[in-house]
Amino acid sequence: MKPIVGIIMGSDSDLPVMQEAAKILDDFGIPYELTIVSAHRTPERLFTYAKTAKEKGLKVIIAGAGGAAHLPGMVASLTALPVIGVPVKTRTLSGVDSLYSIVQMPPGIPVATVAINGAKNAGILAGSIIGSFDDGIYQKVETYKKELQEMVEDKADRLETMKYEHYLESM
Amino acid sequence: MKPIVGIIMGSDSDLPVMQEAAKILDDFGIPYELTIVSAHRTPERLFTYAKTAKEKGLKVIIAGAGGAAHLPGMVASLTALPVIGVPVKTRTLSGVDSLYSIVQMPPGIPVATVAINGAKNAGILAGSIIGSFDDGIYQKVETYKKELQEMVEDKADRLETMKYEHYLESM
Amino acid sequence: MKPIVGIIMGSDSDLPVMQEAAKILDDFGIPYELTIVSAHRTPERLFTYAKTAKEKGLKVIIAGAGGAAHLPGMVASLTALPVIGVPVKTRTLSGVDSLYSIVQMPPGIPVATVAINGAKNAGILAGSIIGSFDDGIYQKVETYKKELQEMVEDKADRLETMKYEHYLESM
Amino acid sequence: MKPIVGIIMGSDSDLPVMQEAAKILDDFGIPYELTIVSAHRTPERLFTYAKTAKEKGLKVIIAGAGGAAHLPGMVASLTALPVIGVPVKTRTLSGVDSLYSIVQMPPGIPVATVAINGAKNAGILAGSIIGSFDDGIYQKVETYKKELQEMVEDKADRLETMKYEHYLESM
Amino acid sequence: MKPIVGIIMGSDSDLPVMQEAAKILDDFGIPYELTIVSAHRTPERLFTYAKTAKEKGLKVIIAGAGGAAHLPGMVASLTALPVIGVPVKTRTLSGVDSLYSIVQMPPGIPVATVAINGAKNAGILAGSIIGSFDDGIYQKVETYKKELQEMVEDKADRLETMKYEHYLESM
Amino acid sequence: MKPIVGIIMGSDSDLPVMQEAAKILDDFGIPYELTIVSAHRTPERLFTYAKTAKEKGLKVIIAGAGGAAHLPGMVASLTALPVIGVPVKTRTLSGVDSLYSIVQMPPGIPVATVAINGAKNAGILAGSIIGSFDDGIYQKVETYKKELQEMVEDKADRLETMKYEHYLESM
Amino acid sequence: MKPIVGIIMGSDSDLPVMQEAAKILDDFGIPYELTIVSAHRTPERLFTYAKTAKEKGLKVIIAGAGGAAHLPGMVASLTALPVIGVPVKTRTLSGVDSLYSIVQMPPGIPVATVAINGAKNAGILAGSIIGSFDDGIYQKVETYKKELQEMVEDKADRLETMKYEHYLESM
Amino acid sequence: MKPIVGIIMGSDSDLPVMQEAAKILDDFGIPYELTIVSAHRTPERLFTYAKTAKEKGLKVIIAGAGGAAHLPGMVASLTALPVIGVPVKTRTLSGVDSLYSIVQMPPGIPVATVAINGAKNAGILAGSIIGSFDDGIYQKVETYKKELQEMVEDKADRLETMKYEHYLESM
Repeated sequence: MKPIVGIIMGSDSDLPVMQEAAKILDDFGIPYELTIVSAHRTPERLFTYAKTAKEKGLKVIIAGAGGAAHLPGMVASLTALPVIGVPVKTRTLSGVDSLYSIVQMPPGIPVATVAINGAKNAGILAGSIIGSFDDGIYQKVETYKKELQEMVEDKADRLETMKYEHYLESM
Repeated sequence: MKPIVGIIMGSDSDLPVMQEAAKILDDFGIPYELTIVSAHRTPERLFTYAKTAKEKGLKVIIAGAGGAAHLPGMVASLTALPVIGVPVKTRTLSGVDSLYSIVQMPPGIPVATVAINGAKNAGILAGSIIGSFDDGIYQKVETYKKELQEMVEDKADRLETMKYEHYLESM
Repeated sequence: MKPIVGIIMGSDSDLPVMQEAAKILDDFGIPYELTIVSAHRTPERLFTYAKTAKEKGLKVIIAGAGGAAHLPGMVASLTALPVIGVPVKTRTLSGVDSLYSIVQMPPGIPVATVAINGAKNAGILAGSIIGSFDDGIYQKVETYKKELQEMVEDKADRLETMKYEHYLESM
Repeated sequence: MKPIVGIIMGSDSDLPVMQEAAKILDDFGIPYELTIVSAHRTPERLFTYAKTAKEKGLKVIIAGAGGAAHLPGMVASLTALPVIGVPVKTRTLSGVDSLYSIVQMPPGIPVATVAINGAKNAGILAGSIIGSFDDGIYQKVETYKKELQEMVEDKADRLETMKYEHYLESM
Repeated sequence: MKPIVGIIMGSDSDLPVMQEAAKILDDFGIPYELTIVSAHRTPERLFTYAKTAKEKGLKVIIAGAGGAAHLPGMVASLTALPVIGVPVKTRTLSGVDSLYSIVQMPPGIPVATVAINGAKNAGILAGSIIGSFDDGIYQKVETYKKELQEMVEDKADRLETMKYEHYLESM
Repeated sequence: MKPIVGIIMGSDSDLPVMQEAAKILDDFGIPYELTIVSAHRTPERLFTYAKTAKEKGLKVIIAGAGGAAHLPGMVASLTALPVIGVPVKTRTLSGVDSLYSIVQMPPGIPVATVAINGAKNAGILAGSIIGSFDDGIYQKVETYKKELQEMVEDKADRLETMKYEHYLESM
Repeated sequence: MKPIVGIIMGSDSDLPVMQEAAKILDDFGIPYELTIVSAHRTPERLFTYAKTAKEKGLKVIIAGAGGAAHLPGMVASLTALPVIGVPVKTRTLSGVDSLYSIVQMPPGIPVATVAINGAKNAGILAGSIIGSFDDGIYQKVETYKKELQEMVEDKADRLETMKYEHYLESM
Repeated sequence: MKPIVGIIMGSDSDLPVMQEAAKILDDFGIPYELTIVSAHRTPERLFTYAKTAKEKGLKVIIAGAGGAAHLPGMVASLTALPVIGVPVKTRTLSGVDSLYSIVQMPPGIPVATVAINGAKNAGILAGSIIGSFDDGIYQKVETYKKELQEMVEDKADRLETMKYEHYLESM
């Protein structure tokens, strides 16, 4: 199936974080492609990627980056597709730098920013966006949220029926 | 035309900021509804709004709030539609509180966060999301971005042909 | 004995922190219930919990959450009981996100916020609130504070009578 | 009527903020006293105030302070009554200093902290605490919250029935 | 004379800040060009500008931007010339966002960052860089620093010989 | 010899940090006493300690505390002696909370604040204060600074004469 | 009378803040000198000032600076006298930059830091330091603190005997 | 070959970070010297180093420091050569203190600041500065950037041709 979501990241060191977006898209059955595009080290590649995304059939782009984290914003400046930005946690500033760089875009060029290291939520947001126009996917996102709810309710049941000390031991 | 975007805000004091989302949707010709829903003062209203959004035909919800700013996240917890959050600037913490409250959502419940006071970008992002599945709207977002580009190029031309002191005086 | 304090948390991963509230209530002999209620994953459960708290006989609710941390504020919006919020430390922003989300509530809907990871203090504060109207509990809180004082004085005595190097070794 | 809430502040320059606590207590019909107690300039007065609060009949103490803002914490160290802390906004650090000083209390000595400049919420929280043990006051807090809800719903109605541009003009 | 410094900014709203770079280069007699290049609104223009800078004879590029502030870093990714970044103060985050976005560049692509709104220093730094290889310019930078020193010494003399109250009145 | 410096800390958990003040005073030959005084857990002890410090012969008080960190400021409010505050690093906010609580004192009641965990510098500052009025101690502080200088110069010599890779291996 | 306190500042723009140190020293009857010394613009002057301070008879140096704010730390590196640092508020970072630059000194070279814009407290701290070795000055600092206390008590009396609304009007 | 870049650091504990500047200069074939100069512990050495840098033939100075981090700014105040500052990460404030101290220099005295711990980028920036006037070095910087690009492209190829799970395992 042709990918309709593009997952890109500034460096392969972001892959342990960004794989969560891929996993949830797998769960939703949404075809995606995943690769590395560095705004700073491969600016031409960035241009080509963003400029051809629409014609390749992508509906949403997920871009993760850390530090100065220009990737999501630069992609957004080169396409009219929705771009989801994942601020990757950094060693020195814990990802506050990544967050500010990604979220504080100027009027005209939005990036849909999720939490620091929030790649899973980036995937779910892509699912919501696609699901808004595709009932099958919408059902899958709803089901996913329902499962989360049931998981919490199960845990709550268990916690209420045993002493919390035992629950802690069983974790 | 039936609204396909819902713009909500926690208080009418957010309206001067949030109207920018409405204006750009007007520009794109995207029908929307706009109202006040307070997570803290009208929690039942919040439930009803979020729970009925899909069946009413909404494709995207834009929610603005300041301070503890629970509105966007709580809406996202109650619907599988994509929710765009606008952190409204606050008097004491300049909107850092709003930003953290909106963007730092837990795994499972994303909010597509834009810049502090970034309501215009929320509207453009809604346009991009809809445009990803509607070529007419896609064209409008692309045209809007092209106009931005031309406006910058015109300014650059003017600045390059006159002394910057004169340009400053003419601003 | 029927619980008069409700301890809730957004996820069982908050339990290692939140158990401190339970322990101190055990010390004070205040009956409590403890469970999981997620604002984002189980919003209906949140509604029911908060709406029935008063009639169940609860006098105080202690709610812990991390990140966007909407639980305490949403509970406070659904009941007129006093709600104590515990901002749980997060991996990326150390709990500053949790703190701002919980403490920066809008006029009308207060949350009594304690320190980041301050679940023990949440329990003591619940004790103080109840003690203000129940002399037996008041005595227990006073006794607890007196014991803290004596513990510090004992340590001070030991530190003053031995060299600090030895004290450090004995720690 | 004998006061059951004490409102204190570190300086009369905090009065424009702290009066909001008094106003809401007036609305609730809760008798209070209001005065200045400076932790740093009148430490003996602080001791006496906190030590005699219980026997004077106070049920809750509201303490506002800015900057180093030691007043709420020091009062809490000297009484077993519940103490609500109001971090007052400062000119240099916007009240982040006040917030951290008040909320980050060590285990054993909680302060129930509200938002920066959140004196009104301090008053409402005092109402909730008292209301938890006094049905008349509980009704008043509930009524107050209901009125907030209705006020928001009225505004929402007005906003939905007129164009937002007109609503803005009418603000 | 052919420009050897390029001063660019993301928007003409940055010109009141960025003109300080131009002024000091005028003082040093260093020829420069000044224009608008927006990373987000004119990404192609950015590419062309950066890619042709070296062949046009530029020795240093000064780039100012606010908020997400990708301009300096993207220019640096497209040329091997030294790029000086000026973080422009923003209304919401005071320029901390601009600063982090500009300074926290990844290994391989440095931006020489100056203070928030530090456009004058960007010009002086350009002077130092050129002066390091051009004795005439080096003398001018040294002379400028000497004049600063003398100006401070004159003020110190005046302040020491009159009462500070009078000095304040004369300011 | 009668102590002329008092070193106090809010908890024995601060001792690993605060011992550095004692060590440097030992080096300077300045007699000191060291104990625990908790502003929150032993407020009466705090009062007595601060009120009797002058008559006991203390010239300087060094007070270390973390979190809300009221100890240094409360001591300063109860004595006219100079008080040096050491903000102790905290697990959640890294000591920013301690720093703001200690340094942001209101007009009238200064605390001489040193770096987070800067207990050694607190000791040196006490030495400088005493040395300003005692030539023997002044000499010792000067000598200490000279030794620091020589230590750096020795390391610089070693680093310059060997390859830095070897220097790193020898560290 | 020969000055025993030196008040220096990095720029005459700091004088409106720093004059408060002079005023309080006037109140205490402590002779001082006041001038401008810029670490960055007049480094030689800084060296000479700091190196000759002791022999000129100074007992304490008060140094105020904003932004990078190297003045207090560099003076402290060049003398064994106690140096009090005043972080001056800045337009972009509100003085957080000044505070961190002044307080975070490395082991060996302390600066006694007061609050942002806390020049009055710098003067009082100088008074406390001198008063620790001069009973006349000690009395003056104690009297000053007593007057502060009385002023607060007078205000408290007035506030308690009139309605707070009237007190506010009379401010 | 005579060094044309000086690498200095405030302490040998900065060497593990600062060696990255040396390594990249080795790669570029740019001769450099490397030593320790402490602004606070060896102020005279700082003076001599900065004052003689130009006549020794240095073209650029790289200065790394942590905490109060005065070294880069003080060097810049004593020479008209371009100074690159490297904010070294600190244990308490993660290097935000170092960053603010280095970057927030006053008008007149710029420091070219790179990322926290960004010593490699400091070396590359020195290469760019020298390369701007030396075609051989310019080629080397360009080649280095091209190699970075190819490295990213190779990784992207590998990631695209294998499953990301396998790529992760092979890291």
